[in-house]
Amino acid sequence: MTISHRRHILRRQLAAAELDAILVTDLVNVRYLSGFTGSNAALLIPTEGDTPVLATDGRYRTQAAQQAPDAQILIERACAPQLVRAAEAAGVKRLGFESHVMTVDAHAALQRVSGNLELVRAPGMVETLREVKDAGEIAILRLACEAADAALKDLIESGGLRAGRTEKEVGRELEARMLDHGADGPSFETIVATGANSAIPHHRPTDAVLAAGDFVKIDFGALVEGYHSDMTRTFVLSPVAQWQRDIYDLVATSQRAGREALVPGTTLAAVDRASRQVIADAGYGEQFSHGLGHGVGLQIHEAPGINSAAAGTLLAGSVVTVEPGVYLPGRGGVRIEDTLVVSGDTTHTPELLTRFPKELAIL
Amino acid sequence: MTISHRRHILRRQLAAAELDAILVTDLVNVRYLSGFTGSNAALLIPTEGDTPVLATDGRYRTQAAQQAPDAQILIERACAPQLVRAAEAAGVKRLGFESHVMTVDAHAALQRVSGNLELVRAPGMVETLREVKDAGEIAILRLACEAADAALKDLIESGGLRAGRTEKEVGRELEARMLDHGADGPSFETIVATGANSAIPHHRPTDAVLAAGDFVKIDFGALVEGYHSDMTRTFVLSPVAQWQRDIYDLVATSQRAGREALVPGTTLAAVDRASRQVIADAGYGEQFSHGLGHGVGLQIHEAPGINSAAAGTLLAGSVVTVEPGVYLPGRGGVRIEDTLVVSGDTTHTPELLTRFPKELAIL
Repeated sequence: MTISHRRHILRRQLAAAELDAILVTDLVNVRYLSGFTGSNAALLIPTEGDTPVLATDGRYRTQAAQQAPDAQILIERACAPQLVRAAEAAGVKRLGFESHVMTVDAHAALQRVSGNLELVRAPGMVETLREVKDAGEIAILRLACEAADAALKDLIESGGLRAGRTEKEVGRELEARMLDHGADGPSFETIVATGANSAIPHHRPTDAVLAAGDFVKIDFGALVEGYHSDMTRTFVLSPVAQWQRDIYDLVATSQRAGREALVPGTTLAAVDRASRQVIADAGYGEQFSHGLGHGVGLQIHEAPGINSAAAGTLLAGSVVTVEPGVYLPGRGGVRIEDTLVVSGDTTHTPELLTRFPKELAIL
Repeated sequence: MTISHRRHILRRQLAAAELDAILVTDLVNVRYLSGFTGSNAALLIPTEGDTPVLATDGRYRTQAAQQAPDAQILIERACAPQLVRAAEAAGVKRLGFESHVMTVDAHAALQRVSGNLELVRAPGMVETLREVKDAGEIAILRLACEAADAALKDLIESGGLRAGRTEKEVGRELEARMLDHGADGPSFETIVATGANSAIPHHRPTDAVLAAGDFVKIDFGALVEGYHSDMTRTFVLSPVAQWQRDIYDLVATSQRAGREALVPGTTLAAVDRASRQVIADAGYGEQFSHGLGHGVGLQIHEAPGINSAAAGTLLAGSVVTVEPGVYLPGRGGVRIEDTLVVSGDTTHTPELLTRFPKELAIL
């Protein structure tokens, strides 16, 4: 699926919503629909024809022409107002705008230049489109997940996860190793949580020292060409206690149930339930305090959210995480997380992108 | 100035605007006014009394109590609507909101629960307050600038800037060295631009190899406790050409003029002009294609913007960058940038926070 094809699908939705065009102001959405990655831009996509208009400022004249060769380029610092004027001049009557990202003040500024044109709320249209990844996107996500896999493998094999090191040291080494494996950077702030800290779902690395008998929970990912990977593994520094084995096995079983529920057409709430029920049945429902997973792509968290309150169903070709956890305050916690591609065929299992082993490793 | 004092100043402004309270939804502003750093929060500050109400979700129950001990804590995932209900119940009639950051959809959701309360646009009130730094903030900014200074010194002294290395390698080493000197991370994506790439104002590091005779432009900073430093230095890898000396001297003279113009009460446009005129007089006005500087603090770019179109004057106690540049496409460019504190006294020079030398260094 080329970028032009993405716009083709969007234009059908614009027609269905009786819009003459859409003004895209979210920069991730601009990138998705044009290829342009600059920090100041807006994109006008007419419902008829396939010549989008990309507005950006003078700093990006060359880059815009290179990255978005099939767009008409408008050089103007105030991108969105200029595109509204252009749309009005082109006879657009109903112009959709991204009301879920546009600020109240930016909207007021557009209204002042909109003339006879009506600004119509069109929240989340591009995000919905982005939920299903094309082959090119999946290929990049695969590379991002491979970089994270390889970095964690290097870290473990070189003895980088051992008593005496700090959470920060481990996090820094892991991030450096991802760069060695082709990542442009970490895809979010790396979590390294040892001992009791592992019971904090989102813990920032501190100078806390890894110690014998600790759970060490590592949640991290690689950024490659704008796409994010996401994986969590939890290790034990020898000796392991029985309660640690029990919690680990429980989370592993729950995580497997979640992965197995990734069948296109399943409701998102049912996917969450399949995994959560395992933990609830063991009496730890209260200790699994977050949703099961989320979409991953140009953003680390994107549609669909997989949790008990989610509406909608799982789409073939979406890329999601499955990440149950059990957290025992003051003692420690386990989370196991993979990134997977939902298959286009209900008889096929999802493709596992994060392939680092999930058996309990006692280091 | 304590956090409570910041709210005190804000409350006077709320009273002047005839607001009964303000709803703060920008997370940086929430941090500034409460100390809380979580990723989901909103803050209600009544014009009377000093008990702010901080809303956040269950993940942050402990952290909120620790970081914002003087606030009333409301645990609720939908922070802003809950605070609007609380304000309405408390008798608030006119509630200010941050219309420059709140989305159209979020605003509509608040209107649905606002009852008799009127939502009043109050854009940029906290950002204006943040422009003047207190002693605690300046102390942290000093640390951030020192970490960047020390990292660059280490890099140069260890021969890290030499022909044969790539831009990416240099950038990675510099970032690692900042961490060694106490930074929590880089304050933005490090720019390392060699040879002709140095003529691109904002260049992302590539695999381009540093070569003899290149300009190497490095724009980077350290993040410490949420505060950002910002510095640019440009080096030459021996041998140096006369045109390089000429351009460097010109930019250095322009930068000095900009620093000397940092007198409280001066119009922002005049500060820009003082520096820009030097370059324009030498015939390179067209090659200095961006503003002179910007405020730095909890964000890498914040008020005031220092450029030819800026309104307003320079405030005592603001922390700003001065960063003129001359860029010759296809050949190379020079930018020299410092972060400085504007003095409270018109007879005192600004405090230089980025102290790495600015004489032309030929490596």
